[in-house]
Amino acid sequence: MSKEKPVIIIDAMGGDFAPGITVDGTCQMAAESNAHFILVGDETRIKAELKKHSYNEEQISIVHTPEMITNEDSPKTAIREKKNASVLLAARMLKEGKGDAMVSAGSTAAVILSASLYIKRIPGVKRAAIGTVFPTLKEDKTKSPYSVVMDVGANICNSPDDLVHYAYMGVAYLKEVFNFDDPTVGLLNIGAESHKGNDTMKEAYKLLSSRSDLNFIGNVEGNDITNGKADVIVSEGLTGNIAMKSVEGVAESVKKLAKMALKGKLIWRLGLLFLSGGIKKIMKVASYEEYGGAPIFGFDKLVIKSHGRCTAYAYKNGLRTALEAIDRNMIGFMRDSISKFEADKISE
Amino acid sequence: MSKEKPVIIIDAMGGDFAPGITVDGTCQMAAESNAHFILVGDETRIKAELKKHSYNEEQISIVHTPEMITNEDSPKTAIREKKNASVLLAARMLKEGKGDAMVSAGSTAAVILSASLYIKRIPGVKRAAIGTVFPTLKEDKTKSPYSVVMDVGANICNSPDDLVHYAYMGVAYLKEVFNFDDPTVGLLNIGAESHKGNDTMKEAYKLLSSRSDLNFIGNVEGNDITNGKADVIVSEGLTGNIAMKSVEGVAESVKKLAKMALKGKLIWRLGLLFLSGGIKKIMKVASYEEYGGAPIFGFDKLVIKSHGRCTAYAYKNGLRTALEAIDRNMIGFMRDSISKFEADKISE
Repeated sequence: MSKEKPVIIIDAMGGDFAPGITVDGTCQMAAESNAHFILVGDETRIKAELKKHSYNEEQISIVHTPEMITNEDSPKTAIREKKNASVLLAARMLKEGKGDAMVSAGSTAAVILSASLYIKRIPGVKRAAIGTVFPTLKEDKTKSPYSVVMDVGANICNSPDDLVHYAYMGVAYLKEVFNFDDPTVGLLNIGAESHKGNDTMKEAYKLLSSRSDLNFIGNVEGNDITNGKADVIVSEGLTGNIAMKSVEGVAESVKKLAKMALKGKLIWRLGLLFLSGGIKKIMKVASYEEYGGAPIFGFDKLVIKSHGRCTAYAYKNGLRTALEAIDRNMIGFMRDSISKFEADKISE
Repeated sequence: MSKEKPVIIIDAMGGDFAPGITVDGTCQMAAESNAHFILVGDETRIKAELKKHSYNEEQISIVHTPEMITNEDSPKTAIREKKNASVLLAARMLKEGKGDAMVSAGSTAAVILSASLYIKRIPGVKRAAIGTVFPTLKEDKTKSPYSVVMDVGANICNSPDDLVHYAYMGVAYLKEVFNFDDPTVGLLNIGAESHKGNDTMKEAYKLLSSRSDLNFIGNVEGNDITNGKADVIVSEGLTGNIAMKSVEGVAESVKKLAKMALKGKLIWRLGLLFLSGGIKKIMKVASYEEYGGAPIFGFDKLVIKSHGRCTAYAYKNGLRTALEAIDRNMIGFMRDSISKFEADKISE
């Protein structure tokens, strides 16, 4: 394991279309980098997929395991009963230093439970977080076209300290992976004023305001998620989850509306057709396919979760995210800023 | 005040375009009903507006007050300092039995504070709630095209009992005002399983499940708001507010996207134009303009809040909501079902 040649451990069996898209995406990323990729999973099936692609054999190796966690499994039970499931083995290998990051398109619960079993958290961090990346319509092109909201459901409740940790982690993510300077931080709340919200939010507001190394812009509301008022939006897991799914619900309804229009008059169909190019162009810069996967935040080693139904192209971009984060030492930046926060708490 | 001739007390000065649209909407509704309307506000300005319309003079009267709460006022301060503001006077008149309902397009905070000052809550109810009506895309045309989510921000935290009260109030609203039988009730939560969420949600789940007079379908998630999985969605104020604003945010972003398309190629503009008829037709059944205003839930008398920026047509429909709710005795139904719930709690 050297900085010059990063090693990515891949849960080759995780995801709805594994190992087809995981192997395909890996071969694509191998061609675009000098990294090494360890495919963890059923050797026979992985080899069958590898045959479909041309790749540099020195860049890809296989670690065989016959077990895997499927969509039919309850993640909690499977984690106990399938000790050699590909996702668990990948996490164990990451712990043992056999790679710099693990990437999985398996279920979020399975990935978090596997990582929790083997990977320590960043010193000071008590609760891991799931971040969701939202495309936003920011006018200012020098800002990140994405917002990251976290936690969106790894937890129900969080402490004010958790929310400060998430702010630092989100900032490191946008800075080091997306290359955006000085991301702004907002606290998801019921109103803009500093006294709004529950006790956790009020205390988090104070803590976030007191940190000169955070660009905290104050409370933000639900509608600020998609308008991009803040680059990093921190939230307790319960509220973050409900916000994220509310946004997703509208996206689903818009798709349904489009389908209804398609069943309607010819002129509506033409309208959709004419418009689709414009929508695609506007949205491309922030599309899910382009970033491919996001870290599970809070672990002291890099754990990337890709979408369960992602394409090989999106999977490749998830691997690129991993390589970028390794190259830029994203976890190190999280560790440093959080340890500074923890030290300041003690000295106060 | 008689059942035959309902009397509506109107905060004529409340809303961004008052008294223009409030007077216009009132004249429209007067023409479509036999109700009496009391316009509360600046007599000179109201009379100037009335002159623009033809109406039956027996149906409309004016109660003069020179004071009003404007957008520039802090509602909390204004409620204390402007004792004769139109919205406060309207609430006082409602208390004194001078009408069957009050309607205001003033700020939500001003309306709730005014009502709280003078109107008792439904027996058993501890906290008033704001409900937001969402258009949904339900396939089943016999179901309500609207969902109502409450509370969306009158409170931060709520008790499990509050959430049961809200369920009964939402059901009475959809049944008596929108005429939909047996509305379903869902609990906004972080996941579908009964053990999900915080302690309040877990306890509320149990209470709601135990009520045979509620069609409770279990937990619903953020994306279920717009897909219409449940007709009535109950939530603590904090989570409901964040969910509501998250949905609104996407709607704002879609509008912004459309604007960007309008600035783009001719073909995109044509696309939007072709599609607009279809979107309008699909959305019409559930548009905001059609229902015009929603009750502030929990008061023992009918308090209707219309949108601050609503049109005269929407305002008229808010008045229609008031008349419908009076005619169908909506508050009475809320009172009965909640008192039954409260009695059952004691006898258990």
